[in-house]
Amino acid sequence: MSTTLKFTVLLLALGFCRGLLDNYIDEEETEAPDAQASKFGSLWPLPQKVQISEVSFKLTSSSFKIVDAKESSAGPSCSLLQDAYRRYYEYMFGSTKKLGLSKSRRTGPSELTELQVWITSPDSECDDYPSVTSDESYELSVDLPFAVLKAPKVWGALHGLETFSQLLYEDEYGAKSVNATTISDFPRFAHRGILLDSSRHFLPIKVILANLETMAMNKFNVFHWHIVDDQSFPYLSRTFPQLSQQGAYHPYTHVYTPADVKMVIEFARLRGIRVIPEFDTPGHTQSWGKGQKDLLTPCYSGSKPSGTFGPINPILNTTYDFMNQFFKEISTVFPDAYVHLGGDEVDFTCPIQTFSSSWNSTGFKQDYSKLESFYIQRLLDIVTTTNKGYMIWQEVFDNGVKLKPDTVVHVWIGGGSNEEMEKVTAAGYTTILSAPWYLDLISYAQDWQKYYKVEPLNFNGTEEQKKLVIGGEACLWGEYVDATNLTPRLWPRASAVAERLWSAKDVTDINDAFNRLSMHRCRMVERGIPAEPLFSSYCPREYKGI
Amino acid sequence: MSTTLKFTVLLLALGFCRGLLDNYIDEEETEAPDAQASKFGSLWPLPQKVQISEVSFKLTSSSFKIVDAKESSAGPSCSLLQDAYRRYYEYMFGSTKKLGLSKSRRTGPSELTELQVWITSPDSECDDYPSVTSDESYELSVDLPFAVLKAPKVWGALHGLETFSQLLYEDEYGAKSVNATTISDFPRFAHRGILLDSSRHFLPIKVILANLETMAMNKFNVFHWHIVDDQSFPYLSRTFPQLSQQGAYHPYTHVYTPADVKMVIEFARLRGIRVIPEFDTPGHTQSWGKGQKDLLTPCYSGSKPSGTFGPINPILNTTYDFMNQFFKEISTVFPDAYVHLGGDEVDFTCPIQTFSSSWNSTGFKQDYSKLESFYIQRLLDIVTTTNKGYMIWQEVFDNGVKLKPDTVVHVWIGGGSNEEMEKVTAAGYTTILSAPWYLDLISYAQDWQKYYKVEPLNFNGTEEQKKLVIGGEACLWGEYVDATNLTPRLWPRASAVAERLWSAKDVTDINDAFNRLSMHRCRMVERGIPAEPLFSSYCPREYKGI
Repeated sequence: MSTTLKFTVLLLALGFCRGLLDNYIDEEETEAPDAQASKFGSLWPLPQKVQISEVSFKLTSSSFKIVDAKESSAGPSCSLLQDAYRRYYEYMFGSTKKLGLSKSRRTGPSELTELQVWITSPDSECDDYPSVTSDESYELSVDLPFAVLKAPKVWGALHGLETFSQLLYEDEYGAKSVNATTISDFPRFAHRGILLDSSRHFLPIKVILANLETMAMNKFNVFHWHIVDDQSFPYLSRTFPQLSQQGAYHPYTHVYTPADVKMVIEFARLRGIRVIPEFDTPGHTQSWGKGQKDLLTPCYSGSKPSGTFGPINPILNTTYDFMNQFFKEISTVFPDAYVHLGGDEVDFTCPIQTFSSSWNSTGFKQDYSKLESFYIQRLLDIVTTTNKGYMIWQEVFDNGVKLKPDTVVHVWIGGGSNEEMEKVTAAGYTTILSAPWYLDLISYAQDWQKYYKVEPLNFNGTEEQKKLVIGGEACLWGEYVDATNLTPRLWPRASAVAERLWSAKDVTDINDAFNRLSMHRCRMVERGIPAEPLFSSYCPREYKGI
Repeated sequence: MSTTLKFTVLLLALGFCRGLLDNYIDEEETEAPDAQASKFGSLWPLPQKVQISEVSFKLTSSSFKIVDAKESSAGPSCSLLQDAYRRYYEYMFGSTKKLGLSKSRRTGPSELTELQVWITSPDSECDDYPSVTSDESYELSVDLPFAVLKAPKVWGALHGLETFSQLLYEDEYGAKSVNATTISDFPRFAHRGILLDSSRHFLPIKVILANLETMAMNKFNVFHWHIVDDQSFPYLSRTFPQLSQQGAYHPYTHVYTPADVKMVIEFARLRGIRVIPEFDTPGHTQSWGKGQKDLLTPCYSGSKPSGTFGPINPILNTTYDFMNQFFKEISTVFPDAYVHLGGDEVDFTCPIQTFSSSWNSTGFKQDYSKLESFYIQRLLDIVTTTNKGYMIWQEVFDNGVKLKPDTVVHVWIGGGSNEEMEKVTAAGYTTILSAPWYLDLISYAQDWQKYYKVEPLNFNGTEEQKKLVIGGEACLWGEYVDATNLTPRLWPRASAVAERLWSAKDVTDINDAFNRLSMHRCRMVERGIPAEPLFSSYCPREYKGI
């Protein structure tokens, strides 16, 4: 039926780097380096169930096709899948010279010529947006005469295509090969996100798209777009264009137009990725104040305005009129069911005009945190009227603001995050974890291991509480990253988080992870992504840029 | 005579980033951001003497020329300068659309149309290689009718061209402008190097050239090429081709051919940069052993060879025969007067065959460090016969090896490096400093400041001793960097070292440095180099890659 080769030998051919293993595990050196190759090859994140046999097939770029299965509920009109077929064909054969053989070339007896993609549910969701309840499961069977990828919805099919592409390797003659394999897969957590910050540094669209592309390679499904902050307001609002006109680093070159935003959302959708924008208030809003008069609280020096500003002004009705209009726009621009409202790190050092009648009328006097809660409460009510759910940073919960039952509380404060998870879930709220995954905090050596070793459910709580943890996000805050260094700094460090959020809880073998991740990173490099190295090693095809 | 504009306003136009200044100095916020602009604009490293007037001139790509002064000893046959003129013209006008005006266009009264480059010494050294004694000084006068750059040798002219290009800025209408300026400049230290490591990760030639280019923008003048190490041997030796055939990560795709090496050396020479190769022995040589039988010391397990190897085998005559031939080749391939011989971190954990007669004949028995000294001593004698000087890591000095008077001792061990500098110079040896400048050791936030604050002469010693410190090197060891992330990780962090080694001792104002360096980094970005940001900010033209 086929050529069989020892699986470990195949792995060596795929991109297994000698130097890398010689040096990684000093104290467990073995004579046979192949003993350290993962039996799961370069799969990342590791699927829930994998069976790889020693039977292998060849694939050629001239014969191999990805096609819709006859029974599939998604046909040629599903451009999401058609696009994905092209994309994965390119990933799999892009670096291979086309053989230019005629279509009538006889294929060998052990050649795999087709992957059939079969959407099994009547509604493929091809034209929908992904959501937190999307079915992302799939089953993959690689065998002759056809490989078959079955998934209830397109979302699972996208993940299955990535997995299929990860099963390919080059044998010792450079021929593309794949072993007979059976995979059954689904994510452990529904919310697997990356936060990028386009305020501290503007991120050109090209950079955002490249990272969405890479997110899909790692089965991430949420792009948390921290789009504005103190430093700049690059979001071009149709309702309030002066916000970016005045608040962006540059009103033309450093903004996201409505067309840009639309493109990002569609590019993400085609890869099964949700785009959740964050418009963080009432703190982190210095840039908002530049284009919107009276939006920020004026700070006082004695009885006079000092010329500087604090958070969003919670005592003016105009504030809520503005927020009402603004979030109405946001609710139509961003299709996702959720919007992130921030609410973190409100700076209370701005001395306010405590003796004015308007302040006294609020009844809060100097209790700033109550004032913040007052603001947030009204904001949440406003956003609720737009039919959106909301995510908020943990402080909003900590301050006792009344939240809708479907609120997602985002735990980010390091030290005590387990206790926070316990509290949030005890109160019945859904939560996601970011505290251990602040990837902007770089350090020397292999910090991916630290991210990898996190267990999100490692807090005291009932089974019911644990079910409220729907996932997590790796955050790359923007103080020190822009187009020059963001991508290599994020990958493959974020890949460690990807596997933690996708794979089974017991997938914790750090050596196996190192081996698979090393190959996964070389695969990203080969696909044009400057993912940085884990340690001394090489990739068969090094990055072509500088 | 000319249009005059407030200099601070000009700086704002050049690429002065609002966000960056708003946030950098929290406690010294001022109302007028231009108060923080450096009066030295974007000059980096800061020249020794600078006088910038408020008189400004315009430059246009259609009229402006860089030409040899009539009196210059270097004419059109000096391709080093002709290449440099083209390079700097491109840097200065590359992003400007050519106006396509005829040559007879009348230039305005305040337009600067020519920079004359005048090599004043009878021997321009145009076709030479730079050396540690090269004269790198220059004088630059920007005024009408011509700007004049005077330098005794081409090396100073190259630096002066970079400085001239740094004086250009765009006025508020985007017009290229330069202020009337007088500069007199020379380096504080003669040896200003960058160490790159092409063994732990192979660095494609493209990456090396891009970094040489960037070194020139920072007035670095030594590329310390740590070309081979334990992990791989990418140097293709004509005499011993099996070294890379067996010892490189890949014998064809991950090697430096003789043509590659030649190209690197010439590319560097054209930018006034010396290439000093390091062939580190007797430790760090695992990769050498793969292609050269009996070169390494076999380790023993009891009375049997264990199959692993220690450092270069110091007791076999064949070792010295090999080194003799090898370094003869190196002395012809690399034109620099110095070669770096390493000698650091010799691993003594390999149990050797202590009872064999050959060991006993050396008289060293188990005294490994003496054995190392014995080896190094013989190696130094061999290299001396090739008419090269040598650099060595500090351990060789520490171990009491007898060194030639012109030896350069490279101080790298952190903690006690001041004491080491004191000892080395007290013994009368020339030294360079790297201990505080291990740029591979990354950490969160603005670590460039730490590198900037180093004072190399801050050790106890006489004036004579201090004169023996000829400079330093920023080292970017290769464990965690390759083509994907090397360039943004190196720049602009290495720029901090560049200014420390070039500028006057009293150039230590960290705020002024921040402002100049922010603009310098945006200039590098504009020239296509992905130099990472210092802090929240933007560049007028962001990096175009990902």
